[in-house]
Amino acid sequence: MAGRATHCLLTIPKRGYSSKVDKNVAFLGLGNMGGFMAANLVKKGFTVKGYDPSSDAVKAAAKNGITGASSIAAALDGADALVSILPSNKVVLDAYLGKDGVVAHAAKGTLLIDSSTVDPNVPKQIYPVAIENGVGFIDAPVSGGTMGAQNATLAFMSGGRKGDFERSLPMLKAMGAKQFHCGDIGSGQVAKLANNMLMGITGMATAECMNMGIKMGLDPQVLLDVLNNSSARSWSTEVYCPVPGLIPTAPSSKNYDGGFKNELMVKDLELASGMALGIRSPIPLGAVATQLYRMAQTRGFGQKDFSYIYQLLKEDKQ
Amino acid sequence: MAGRATHCLLTIPKRGYSSKVDKNVAFLGLGNMGGFMAANLVKKGFTVKGYDPSSDAVKAAAKNGITGASSIAAALDGADALVSILPSNKVVLDAYLGKDGVVAHAAKGTLLIDSSTVDPNVPKQIYPVAIENGVGFIDAPVSGGTMGAQNATLAFMSGGRKGDFERSLPMLKAMGAKQFHCGDIGSGQVAKLANNMLMGITGMATAECMNMGIKMGLDPQVLLDVLNNSSARSWSTEVYCPVPGLIPTAPSSKNYDGGFKNELMVKDLELASGMALGIRSPIPLGAVATQLYRMAQTRGFGQKDFSYIYQLLKEDKQ
Amino acid sequence: MAGRATHCLLTIPKRGYSSKVDKNVAFLGLGNMGGFMAANLVKKGFTVKGYDPSSDAVKAAAKNGITGASSIAAALDGADALVSILPSNKVVLDAYLGKDGVVAHAAKGTLLIDSSTVDPNVPKQIYPVAIENGVGFIDAPVSGGTMGAQNATLAFMSGGRKGDFERSLPMLKAMGAKQFHCGDIGSGQVAKLANNMLMGITGMATAECMNMGIKMGLDPQVLLDVLNNSSARSWSTEVYCPVPGLIPTAPSSKNYDGGFKNELMVKDLELASGMALGIRSPIPLGAVATQLYRMAQTRGFGQKDFSYIYQLLKEDKQ
Amino acid sequence: MAGRATHCLLTIPKRGYSSKVDKNVAFLGLGNMGGFMAANLVKKGFTVKGYDPSSDAVKAAAKNGITGASSIAAALDGADALVSILPSNKVVLDAYLGKDGVVAHAAKGTLLIDSSTVDPNVPKQIYPVAIENGVGFIDAPVSGGTMGAQNATLAFMSGGRKGDFERSLPMLKAMGAKQFHCGDIGSGQVAKLANNMLMGITGMATAECMNMGIKMGLDPQVLLDVLNNSSARSWSTEVYCPVPGLIPTAPSSKNYDGGFKNELMVKDLELASGMALGIRSPIPLGAVATQLYRMAQTRGFGQKDFSYIYQLLKEDKQ
Repeated sequence: MAGRATHCLLTIPKRGYSSKVDKNVAFLGLGNMGGFMAANLVKKGFTVKGYDPSSDAVKAAAKNGITGASSIAAALDGADALVSILPSNKVVLDAYLGKDGVVAHAAKGTLLIDSSTVDPNVPKQIYPVAIENGVGFIDAPVSGGTMGAQNATLAFMSGGRKGDFERSLPMLKAMGAKQFHCGDIGSGQVAKLANNMLMGITGMATAECMNMGIKMGLDPQVLLDVLNNSSARSWSTEVYCPVPGLIPTAPSSKNYDGGFKNELMVKDLELASGMALGIRSPIPLGAVATQLYRMAQTRGFGQKDFSYIYQLLKEDKQ
Repeated sequence: MAGRATHCLLTIPKRGYSSKVDKNVAFLGLGNMGGFMAANLVKKGFTVKGYDPSSDAVKAAAKNGITGASSIAAALDGADALVSILPSNKVVLDAYLGKDGVVAHAAKGTLLIDSSTVDPNVPKQIYPVAIENGVGFIDAPVSGGTMGAQNATLAFMSGGRKGDFERSLPMLKAMGAKQFHCGDIGSGQVAKLANNMLMGITGMATAECMNMGIKMGLDPQVLLDVLNNSSARSWSTEVYCPVPGLIPTAPSSKNYDGGFKNELMVKDLELASGMALGIRSPIPLGAVATQLYRMAQTRGFGQKDFSYIYQLLKEDKQ
Repeated sequence: MAGRATHCLLTIPKRGYSSKVDKNVAFLGLGNMGGFMAANLVKKGFTVKGYDPSSDAVKAAAKNGITGASSIAAALDGADALVSILPSNKVVLDAYLGKDGVVAHAAKGTLLIDSSTVDPNVPKQIYPVAIENGVGFIDAPVSGGTMGAQNATLAFMSGGRKGDFERSLPMLKAMGAKQFHCGDIGSGQVAKLANNMLMGITGMATAECMNMGIKMGLDPQVLLDVLNNSSARSWSTEVYCPVPGLIPTAPSSKNYDGGFKNELMVKDLELASGMALGIRSPIPLGAVATQLYRMAQTRGFGQKDFSYIYQLLKEDKQ
Repeated sequence: MAGRATHCLLTIPKRGYSSKVDKNVAFLGLGNMGGFMAANLVKKGFTVKGYDPSSDAVKAAAKNGITGASSIAAALDGADALVSILPSNKVVLDAYLGKDGVVAHAAKGTLLIDSSTVDPNVPKQIYPVAIENGVGFIDAPVSGGTMGAQNATLAFMSGGRKGDFERSLPMLKAMGAKQFHCGDIGSGQVAKLANNMLMGITGMATAECMNMGIKMGLDPQVLLDVLNNSSARSWSTEVYCPVPGLIPTAPSSKNYDGGFKNELMVKDLELASGMALGIRSPIPLGAVATQLYRMAQTRGFGQKDFSYIYQLLKEDKQ
């Protein structure tokens, strides 16, 4: 598998398209993910100026060596590159294309890296405007959660010009462990959404099948061992089993706290469903999984890890 | 992972509950699976007498050293143990409990091993009758398909008394690579059905998400690499990718021939669905997957590998 | 519509196949449904002897003129016909085919009418034994609930020989308003299960679409009026709207009490799903509806009317 | 039911908010639906100028008394009101808000009526611009298909100011049989989409349950009669049964031609699904039905009536 991946797991090229080395980085969005990511850039020797509408977030980041900025324009002042991680389509579009936004204030030659998870149409809208203004732009959403952000083990899935991707590698490597170039602009988002929909379905299926076997009397550990040695094994059975107590590091064993929140799973499934609607791609299981994770959220479990669905399937008050 | 499995992957005990070594084996069902399994027993030094209602199957088996028998009783004559692999609940019940059946003709002390995939209630019905007649009985369904049967790499998931399981190990090891003791009688079937339902859902989900990503313009190999390095990886993405041409050994790359037939996937999903119905265990994704694999079968693709579902999702004649 | 139905809505024939008039009726199962049904037989002039394992049920029935019997045999003593309404496949099979059961004690020429809702295979198992013993047998499950039982407005869907159906009509008419002869033995169950699965799906779909429209800002009454005057109208929109306050007589307007309990909907959907599994008939929506009604039950709402699903879809604690 | 509907089935007010009577109507979109609708306006005495990018459509309309116009502006010249029925969100937005569009060329006081089926956000975007330009605007999508368009039996579901709705009534009544005022701008679209999603689910459920009953041996006509006299009855069972030969006027009895094309059902379900996504309203059955109708389309049956799904469920080549 490692071998198979190599053609897409790029290493730093001997020679980028520019001999210029990016040193000064503007950072937008210093929340749960961004705070750690910006701190890791500092640790690896980058000079980082950060902006966030929350002054608390800016203050917290200061402790990790990030210089606070009072606006997007201020953060971009003197920057070679910019990294952003923001919560929604609208916030990203406003931050990049608004009149006080990134594209309006970035100096020619700046490289823009957006790590937000959004509809692939969002980077596709930003890209031509950025290019026209003489700046580079890639989408580079991440997987790995806050744990991955903290430990710099995130995976980046990016889309855009290959040269821009290669130029981004020193920064991506400071913040994560894997970097994929998935294709043209927007491809990072497509890969991320396909991955998260598949993870969401597989996780729910693991919950269904473990619950069924346990209800039939099987020892949970024995059942999990069988699955992990057979054709049903997956990241969900090996790393993230939704049944508490079997994998100590899984969120299910920590009261379903930490991990990947149900409400974020719903957000990604809705983005993926919207994308599938747009291209008329059939997703029968994805559609059902979207509905059920959403119903878990409307029941009030949006802050729990998405593997909490096991508890809802297991429920028996009849 | 290998380590995690050990407490359930048993090794041959130094001393069985009986010092007697099983040497003569009766074999019922010399079809696609059974023919290879019986031949592997012969290869490892067992003396095998085989019975099958098809005289062609008996003749073919003779070439591999299996002595033909004209009835269940004849196969059992002088046998220390019996192995069976038969196509349905009804055939198994008739073969074991019918008046010309196994339990009526097995000598006291014989060990009976049923490798058929059936409703867990089937072994539960046979077990007390067998015990009353002084013979041992375990259910031991397999995974691995005809390839696994031929190469003796099957996985056996078995249920029943631990002593009987341990006694069966020399035979199971002659026919396969992994042996699990899953619990009381019927547990092997439960584990097998849970595994195959989970494999069926994960496989269909992989087909959905790969199709969606490819339709959005991603290179299939790049997308698969991303999934295999992220939280969506599974046996389906690593070994059995439904998109042709990415994994040369997968059925999808061989015109969806060989592998695990769609109609067998439907059979197992229907057994699993029936089991879930009986205990009122919710299987929202399992229920949808069952319907869609069945619809693939009614469209005439029952003989193709189950990963053929990718071709149906991909279809576009609009 | 009335016209279309006539060929199957039979009227009492001028002359049955027997000139004998059934007068003495044995009644098995004096619960929520059976208590009212037996009382209605008494009101129309039949002499009824009733048996129920619960002595309280027998005592309550006595107030309505039903003579208590201490066993099935005692109830059948002197009976021309028998009516039963019992809770499950197993109870029906035991009551009819057990050694103290109906078939063993019914006098030749007795007509047996089973109004229980069960797997169609149950009447198919009883029928040949009954015929061999010289008694008639029809399956005649009902729809209409306890309200229909009390007001003698039940619909009977029956299967079996036409002569037996015609002979049953005076009794069925004493207990209900509509009588269908659906075909051979078991056909009543098939029709009942097809009807209830379709009602269950349509009811849930009504809940989904009303909820969606209301959440988009539509006035609930206006939306319901549109649906009722358009191609989405159904019994669920016209009579049984799941949104409280729009149809005063619907269970939704009475705190979802009364009506058809969620747990009974689950029972019928599971029987229908099992039937569909057996014949490999695809039920994609039926399968999903079964899962969701069951999840409503496991959440503890089994005693509420099945239209309570609207409240679960509407839920919003995110 | 008729009574229940009256508060929303409005009749022509004795006195509109304007004493002005609309006489000259511009018509955009002279396709399958629009051609008939414009012709019906002419029949009722309106003077109609029609525009369509297809000159063939304009010529065909001329035979029914519609004066051809070479542009939107030309059609609007001298018009009191405008009616449009166009194929997609984008075409509607361009036609209304483009620089050669309706709002730019309509004289103050004109009433604009859009009968296209689109995302509710489309009329919500057009409305404020229209109002600012001094013209009235309502959304008024229709149900009833080409048959309803031809026979002037369409139902109009409209949203917008009540006065505008009342003013539109003479025109709506010339083209259809029912007119609903559903609420503020966009409400017509919401009601239409809720209705069509519910019709789509109920229709597919009818196909599933009829198929299951017939496969179990029931006579199709008898089964339909039972459903039509029980709690599963709906417009689909009474008017539009998907099984051929039972209802002569249903598309299923005419080779599934005519009626409401599968591809239009898919379009409406996708609009409804998108709407539900946007407000996070759970639609478990709607989501599955959307996927399956779409798969029917990708199999090449988009031109058949949506009840063709029965043939796909019934298929049996296994």
